[in-house]
Amino acid sequence: MSELRKDPIVGKWVIISVERGKRPSEFVRKSLPARSGFCPFCPGNEDKTPPEIIAYRPTGTPPNTPGWTLRVVPNKFPALRIEGDLERAGEGVYDRMNGVGAHEVIIESPNHADTLATISEKAFEDLLWAYRDRIIDLKRDRRLKYVLIFKNQGEEAGATLEHTHSQLIALPVVPKRVQEELDGCLKYFNYKERCIFCDIIRQELLQRNRVVSENQDFLCITPYASRSPFETWILPKRHTSAYENAQKNEYQSLAQIFRDTLKRLDKVLENPPYNFMLHTAPLNHGESEYFHWHFEILPKLTEVAGFEWGSDFYINPTPPEEAARFLREATLE
Amino acid sequence: MSELRKDPIVGKWVIISVERGKRPSEFVRKSLPARSGFCPFCPGNEDKTPPEIIAYRPTGTPPNTPGWTLRVVPNKFPALRIEGDLERAGEGVYDRMNGVGAHEVIIESPNHADTLATISEKAFEDLLWAYRDRIIDLKRDRRLKYVLIFKNQGEEAGATLEHTHSQLIALPVVPKRVQEELDGCLKYFNYKERCIFCDIIRQELLQRNRVVSENQDFLCITPYASRSPFETWILPKRHTSAYENAQKNEYQSLAQIFRDTLKRLDKVLENPPYNFMLHTAPLNHGESEYFHWHFEILPKLTEVAGFEWGSDFYINPTPPEEAARFLREATLE
Repeated sequence: MSELRKDPIVGKWVIISVERGKRPSEFVRKSLPARSGFCPFCPGNEDKTPPEIIAYRPTGTPPNTPGWTLRVVPNKFPALRIEGDLERAGEGVYDRMNGVGAHEVIIESPNHADTLATISEKAFEDLLWAYRDRIIDLKRDRRLKYVLIFKNQGEEAGATLEHTHSQLIALPVVPKRVQEELDGCLKYFNYKERCIFCDIIRQELLQRNRVVSENQDFLCITPYASRSPFETWILPKRHTSAYENAQKNEYQSLAQIFRDTLKRLDKVLENPPYNFMLHTAPLNHGESEYFHWHFEILPKLTEVAGFEWGSDFYINPTPPEEAARFLREATLE
Repeated sequence: MSELRKDPIVGKWVIISVERGKRPSEFVRKSLPARSGFCPFCPGNEDKTPPEIIAYRPTGTPPNTPGWTLRVVPNKFPALRIEGDLERAGEGVYDRMNGVGAHEVIIESPNHADTLATISEKAFEDLLWAYRDRIIDLKRDRRLKYVLIFKNQGEEAGATLEHTHSQLIALPVVPKRVQEELDGCLKYFNYKERCIFCDIIRQELLQRNRVVSENQDFLCITPYASRSPFETWILPKRHTSAYENAQKNEYQSLAQIFRDTLKRLDKVLENPPYNFMLHTAPLNHGESEYFHWHFEILPKLTEVAGFEWGSDFYINPTPPEEAARFLREATLE
């Protein structure tokens, strides 16, 4: 079983994943395995993944057979596993617990060549529903504190399989980055009695220079302190802190702006590798006045190097105002 | 001039570097410039860098001419500049200041083919003295709060020039990651009345399973909650919080263990790309009872992907105990 270990100085948790255990030789670049033509996520290969958790498929088709349009399966090499107890324990100055959690893969399309920018708006909306369905299901497990949904697109962004997919990791602790956002939002709320994201949305809609696009329910911006070139956020205009509580029409609206944003990034940056992640309230928080869920999209264009590792300070060579202008002015078919 | 912008939610600063300004086309991978054979850091090309700040060279040789063994020059494309006032200002919900600071390059050897694992122990010691000399000089500028010294070795770790060099960025704020360490150390000190790093050193010397090597003055370990495979720390055994206050013999001792560690990493991982950074006390802190300076070395073997970006949670496939054993057992010539 994997182990969760806490950095005793800054309080950050790390997953020491024994099941993925790597020997030094596996890290040496020249020994990276060659890509085979076989894809475990393509229809017909359903038996090459663990049995599906949910799938969107025509009624009457049996599980783990072709016909599906979206499929959620456990990760075959999970960083965390759902079985077992946390068993928090100390070891001198250090703290650990068992790697209890969930690690799932959301296969976004049956077609190997698709990307999130090429699937239909309906398929994108289904994906957003799948995220919601999984959060609601995992919430019932009281050991879990947070569900992080994310996507790695392209090898440089960490994808190890080409077939378009997102991932979900459910954690027994609230991750540090999310806790920092919650703390920052609460500090602002205690001072101003307003949600900081709501204030950001108001200011961006007035200034307009970092707005990429908007629709009735959502706003897409390049954030003021973008960590990397073309960092892009998508936020609901209405104050709401838990993704799974969105209205039905909002998932449709989100699919429209999210897909449009990815198309714009693909156009301007010529199909860049990217990561995105959903920041939503912790599982047991429910709706709060101070937090506001959103997606963060980070094209992988620069390297995290010594300065960034050492400082958590980022150097961004592209002002977000310029990035927003390029994205806004991109002409899409 | 570059601009420093503060993330209004988590309080992290970002350098929006206008002088390095990049257009979208420059990020598209296929248009990366081909490497030319010319190296601005090689002897004879001293006029291709800004004039040297310091150099270790035979007495009598004029500045900016060959003969040097180590040379410190301003970065030609600095993220921050030494001229100007901070001019902290607000813009609605956002905060900014001017990009005042310093960005220097430490050229570690005149020989293009050298690495820090191949230079002599004397040359390594000189490098450690150069770090000290620069910190002491920059400390006199009261606008500066922190000097971050770091190295990017190899293209995958963010190096853009091959010729072996470290970098130094002096900042008008204490970076978030360092502040978190300071806060964590102080919290521990307030509770235990001991330095947490001193406690870690004591525990590691007893347990031995994460010790790579030690000498009279320093200890090299793979940290308990290593963020990535083969993360390695070098710490002074004696409690001391400011790098620049080390004893003369300690720089010699550090050169020995640091060079040995890099040789071990090169041997076990076959010359991996890596980053290292010095974490020392902020410039105006002086010696404190609760902080303990150290170097962190991070081989670049895994990608920072969506999960890590979204959570600041790391998945490490190699237990540090295994990494330490491989490094300890490596046979060096």
